Amino acid sequence: MLNRVRSAVAHLVSPGGASPPRPKSPDLPSASSAPAVSAAEASKSPPARPGSGAPTKTVDARASFSRPTFLQLSPGGLRRADDHAGRAVQSPPDTGRRLPWSTGYAEVINAGKSRHNEDQACCEVVYVEGRRSSTGASRESRGSQGLCFYYWGLFDGHAGGGAAEMASRLLHRHIREQLKDLVEILQNPSPPPLCLAPSPGASGPSSPSHLVCPHSCWSPQKEVTHESLVVGAIEHAFQLMDEQMAQERRSHQAEGGCCALVVVYLLGKVYVANAGDSRAIIVRNGEIIPMSREFTPETERQRLQLLGFLKPELLGSEFTHLEFPRRVQPKELGQRMLYRDQNMTGWAYKKIELEDLRFPLICGEGKKARVMATIGVTRGLGDHNLKVCSSTLPIKPFLSCFPEVRVYDLTQYEHCPDDVLVLGTDGLWDVTNDYEVAATVDRVLSAYEPNDPSRYTALAQALVLGARGTPRDRGWRLPNNKLGSGDDISVFVIPLGGPGNYS
Amino acid sequence: MLNRVRSAVAHLVSPGGASPPRPKSPDLPSASSAPAVSAAEASKSPPARPGSGAPTKTVDARASFSRPTFLQLSPGGLRRADDHAGRAVQSPPDTGRRLPWSTGYAEVINAGKSRHNEDQACCEVVYVEGRRSSTGASRESRGSQGLCFYYWGLFDGHAGGGAAEMASRLLHRHIREQLKDLVEILQNPSPPPLCLAPSPGASGPSSPSHLVCPHSCWSPQKEVTHESLVVGAIEHAFQLMDEQMAQERRSHQAEGGCCALVVVYLLGKVYVANAGDSRAIIVRNGEIIPMSREFTPETERQRLQLLGFLKPELLGSEFTHLEFPRRVQPKELGQRMLYRDQNMTGWAYKKIELEDLRFPLICGEGKKARVMATIGVTRGLGDHNLKVCSSTLPIKPFLSCFPEVRVYDLTQYEHCPDDVLVLGTDGLWDVTNDYEVAATVDRVLSAYEPNDPSRYTALAQALVLGARGTPRDRGWRLPNNKLGSGDDISVFVIPLGGPGNYS
Repeated sequence: MLNRVRSAVAHLVSPGGASPPRPKSPDLPSASSAPAVSAAEASKSPPARPGSGAPTKTVDARASFSRPTFLQLSPGGLRRADDHAGRAVQSPPDTGRRLPWSTGYAEVINAGKSRHNEDQACCEVVYVEGRRSSTGASRESRGSQGLCFYYWGLFDGHAGGGAAEMASRLLHRHIREQLKDLVEILQNPSPPPLCLAPSPGASGPSSPSHLVCPHSCWSPQKEVTHESLVVGAIEHAFQLMDEQMAQERRSHQAEGGCCALVVVYLLGKVYVANAGDSRAIIVRNGEIIPMSREFTPETERQRLQLLGFLKPELLGSEFTHLEFPRRVQPKELGQRMLYRDQNMTGWAYKKIELEDLRFPLICGEGKKARVMATIGVTRGLGDHNLKVCSSTLPIKPFLSCFPEVRVYDLTQYEHCPDDVLVLGTDGLWDVTNDYEVAATVDRVLSAYEPNDPSRYTALAQALVLGARGTPRDRGWRLPNNKLGSGDDISVFVIPLGGPGNYS
Repeated sequence: MLNRVRSAVAHLVSPGGASPPRPKSPDLPSASSAPAVSAAEASKSPPARPGSGAPTKTVDARASFSRPTFLQLSPGGLRRADDHAGRAVQSPPDTGRRLPWSTGYAEVINAGKSRHNEDQACCEVVYVEGRRSSTGASRESRGSQGLCFYYWGLFDGHAGGGAAEMASRLLHRHIREQLKDLVEILQNPSPPPLCLAPSPGASGPSSPSHLVCPHSCWSPQKEVTHESLVVGAIEHAFQLMDEQMAQERRSHQAEGGCCALVVVYLLGKVYVANAGDSRAIIVRNGEIIPMSREFTPETERQRLQLLGFLKPELLGSEFTHLEFPRRVQPKELGQRMLYRDQNMTGWAYKKIELEDLRFPLICGEGKKARVMATIGVTRGLGDHNLKVCSSTLPIKPFLSCFPEVRVYDLTQYEHCPDDVLVLGTDGLWDVTNDYEVAATVDRVLSAYEPNDPSRYTALAQALVLGARGTPRDRGWRLPNNKLGSGDDISVFVIPLGGPGNYS
């Protein structure tokens, strides 16, 4: 992500009042104890695909620059990736093992231009061993099978590369941890138990007789689906990843923040979790199915304004939660100007008062929209140190680490080899749109045999090339003579119905 | 609305911390000074349709029972409306002047069953005279024309009839007040001015030199459309109506609360504003276009939970903002139960702690869902006195008076006489759905000549009759032997393309 954070000053700040309480997870993956998930380790069970390497830190002469290991970059390739003048498009090599599902991947990284802000990516097959059964018996003693999920993640970093790099190494491990409790439940067709036996060793107090339940408007119980447990596990994993970044930001240099767009395939369903401004779409038989929406100062305006209104201390004395169509000038005091508050979608006039001269919590439009004049994206991981420029005011309280999770049931439709799920960071979507991407899907895939597994990498490359443009005097222009994306661009193309998938 | 408020105890409470600051309107319509808007008064200018009477209080032997004046109910008709055993369907008489646009209306009111909770309705043509021009010159001195809007409102009362009755008399006047500033602006094709000259007599301080604007990430200015000014005017009018109810609740017995579903037609566009669980749909050439969504404890769960989390004092010591799929039992302390917080759409397990035994902020499902075990709707007007049963905890801070406004451009499509906008309170939608309503639209309208203006009243009656059912031993059953709606039912049918409309 380029220029998303206008002026990030990394001080050590304590997170503000908006972080919710949460139940503790017994064993967090730690950045130090779990340096990298190797394919062999991640895939202890049947679906081991040794080619699906997790992205690990490939140390270059510049210690801060790393690319996913599945790219299998040679030192020369790594240098090319780090060369802004050349802007090479990188993909996993055609030789050797492919990514799971013959997934296509391509990227162009502008390390020379946006140092430390590189996109990162991860593609994994993850085996989940049950922690214990709901009756308290250990998984091993029951001899039942674990679960396996497929995992793809794009992490678009800003204000430092640490967060994206850490998330690409660890977020799927957090998801695995969350799913451990659910292994047996998800494989049981009965509805999930609402209440589990206490954890071994845990001892709650006995029923205190002084607790009375005075109200009785309670319908018997809500139905909770298996699907909503997986959604909850992913949501919780994002929260724990974010907390881990907060805890380890000093010791592991998890500086900066990142958008996270993650896909989990588990038991026939595709879960797309998005926190940030990356985007996922399914192109199925030419039809476009949006699988995410972007979280920006504009799309989350009312949530941010409400928070500023309810917790004015988060605004300091510098910001107002009201929005104006342009900056209010001191000479306009007493005049009436258009404004919007947290409850409004329309505009109305109000008399300008002294505090309306404060800087607006949200300003700018489109790609230039910012929270507190600083950050252009409102969900993601990290950013615990992010402060307003020339101020001690932390921005993190306004950011949410929670993704929106959309679910797509792969079993409800017979997919053909041309049906794909496309994930792209904003570098792609800034210069193209869903329809152009769908047209490229059609054009590129129809040029290859349906059973040619290299077609998805070719498609990913075509999408990245199309968004990057060609040099033409180094202006990197698109065929329509518009400027290409100057940002990092990373793209996954996940075939939904190709031969040999779901193995 | 029947049983929406489970146990409303009307005490005098001060509104809680969630009410936003707002610019003051210079002259609020007052309940005392503006007893009722007569058609003659409301329509000072060209489009006067003398038949469109505003709903005024028709005083019966029971002083609290009133029906809209446009029903022109005789004393006998008023008694029939108030007779639960008969459950008469009432419509404006076929003789005399029709409602604007030949609008159809029908209702069945169960005053005998749900005393003081009756639906109310309003249908008006409202003339807006400009307050002053943006240059400060008075409207009269410039000789320009005012504006006229058409207005329909359904108000579904609960916990007392005062709020619905007051809103039906005054909300359109608040909208008119808000539009007064915009008369000249809306008729000028140029973009609205972002800043207006000071109000006459107002004197702001001169530019204080100590005010500096240290940040400069400011795109020139946002585009504000005429449409968004009307949306803002409607939103603001709802807020002012709610504040007036708070101010006058003692003197004018504006007890209880009401959902409000309001339609404004102005300058070629239809604005549908909804705060509550009434619903509006357009049926156009057989196609259904939703024009509102319902605001209930389920649809607004995350907003309510966030408020409870950020302002725990609003929950007292009795409630928790967490949601559980069923009430937690004291004996389950220490066990792990499924839960959701304000950030989650999925479910996860958490260890039950003492405070999880508190009553959940939101409980129940579907029509039985409640906020604080009390109210089943989360937006609307009034409810300033509403408290939790057997407690002093006010509920109003969790309720929003702001509508969602959707806009439909009537000029973008050539409408035929069978295209209608249907507004109904939840009494209709509880026992039917969009598709059945669309089928009834087709069935009833095709039985009448397209230019027969009585067809829309016939359609409204058919919709109300279909939802009410027939006595069959006073069980009021539908043809499929299901129970009919036991609630109040009121329906407007607004033709979008009939002859003689838009006059």
